[in-house]
Amino acid sequence: MKFTFVTLFSNLIEPYFYDSILKRAIDSNFISYEFYNPRDFTKNKHKKVDKQMIGGGAGMLMTPQPLFDCLDEIKRKNPEAYIIFPLAAAKPFKQNDAKRLAQKKNIVFVSGRYEGIDERVIEKYANEVFSIGEFILTGGELPSLVMADAIARNVEGVLGNSDSLVEESYENNLLEAPSFTKPENFQDLSVIKEFLKGNHSKIATLKYNLAICKTKYFRPSLITNKKTK
Amino acid sequence: MKFTFVTLFSNLIEPYFYDSILKRAIDSNFISYEFYNPRDFTKNKHKKVDKQMIGGGAGMLMTPQPLFDCLDEIKRKNPEAYIIFPLAAAKPFKQNDAKRLAQKKNIVFVSGRYEGIDERVIEKYANEVFSIGEFILTGGELPSLVMADAIARNVEGVLGNSDSLVEESYENNLLEAPSFTKPENFQDLSVIKEFLKGNHSKIATLKYNLAICKTKYFRPSLITNKKTK
Repeated sequence: MKFTFVTLFSNLIEPYFYDSILKRAIDSNFISYEFYNPRDFTKNKHKKVDKQMIGGGAGMLMTPQPLFDCLDEIKRKNPEAYIIFPLAAAKPFKQNDAKRLAQKKNIVFVSGRYEGIDERVIEKYANEVFSIGEFILTGGELPSLVMADAIARNVEGVLGNSDSLVEESYENNLLEAPSFTKPENFQDLSVIKEFLKGNHSKIATLKYNLAICKTKYFRPSLITNKKTK
Repeated sequence: MKFTFVTLFSNLIEPYFYDSILKRAIDSNFISYEFYNPRDFTKNKHKKVDKQMIGGGAGMLMTPQPLFDCLDEIKRKNPEAYIIFPLAAAKPFKQNDAKRLAQKKNIVFVSGRYEGIDERVIEKYANEVFSIGEFILTGGELPSLVMADAIARNVEGVLGNSDSLVEESYENNLLEAPSFTKPENFQDLSVIKEFLKGNHSKIATLKYNLAICKTKYFRPSLITNKKTK
């Protein structure tokens, strides 16, 4: 899987690949990345990429020409480019999108800055648009990284222990149950006693019930007809 | 506002403050940041911070002792510390949280790695727990950055033009209308004609209606009783 980032600020993105799981995935050739800067595609003397909004409104907007030329070149070079725009106004990115997109060969993330991107760029080039949540960020770089990270860990080979993918939040529309590690007692705080007794069927039932309680509390919309056992 | 990041991988976070809006905000003393590494608080020879889960389950979990000692020290040094855990299983972080938390003096983000954090740490220290979305990431570093970014831009002074905060997605539970900039025609794609005519009341009505359509399409749950004009 190759991630292509279109951004004015590659230095906000690139260091995230220098350590931990994604670094290992790059070293092992499971994933790779590249950058394109729309500023390199400007045709004006000052390499300006933004202009005033039409019809009023505060702030500047990324203008069509540099992004059109940049994305045309990317599509020429990467015939399998699948172009995603992280936007505030878009459908929510979810775990099943991360799994589905992990099958692509090349995903292109186009990061907006300033007040956003001229809508014509999105209409012409977007294969999909995603929002990572109901909040506003200073640019598209963090949402691009968030999606790349969520997708990358579903790419075959990236997580060493493939079991780690099995029981996770948002699988089966359930949040994860609380987890504990040793010591069994720490500063008078004990782990849940049942977890210590080694009856795996009882533990599984308890975890399932705790997961349901947690989901009902934090994400009631995920619960449809699930009942505790 | 001071952001305190508790993480094993400060180099995944710090470079994000080296450029663009957050760099300016730091240079102007509107925000600052610091790092704590739980590994510095371990008491074992190999500085190990993780242990096997109790009760079965794949992968490793961050063990209580280093985090207890680390967070105790932070609370001693920063009496106004407000501690947030980004977790998969938590309530969704939203724009009104970003606004509310921008009033705090010091926010501490505790990043989990591996399969997460022993629940006792969260129970003892969390002032709030947030999930940034229904997907799984390789660690808490990106969600911490996402929240810090969303909060920082609501800190007084951080955005140069405070108008930029006025009309945004998720204000009034509406996504933003499409935006356009010059040129009015680009490769046979035109901006919406009404935007060019300069009748601000008509433009405002049109934008409102477009915002409603966009919200109904992408986030129907945000729409309660809103009707187009």
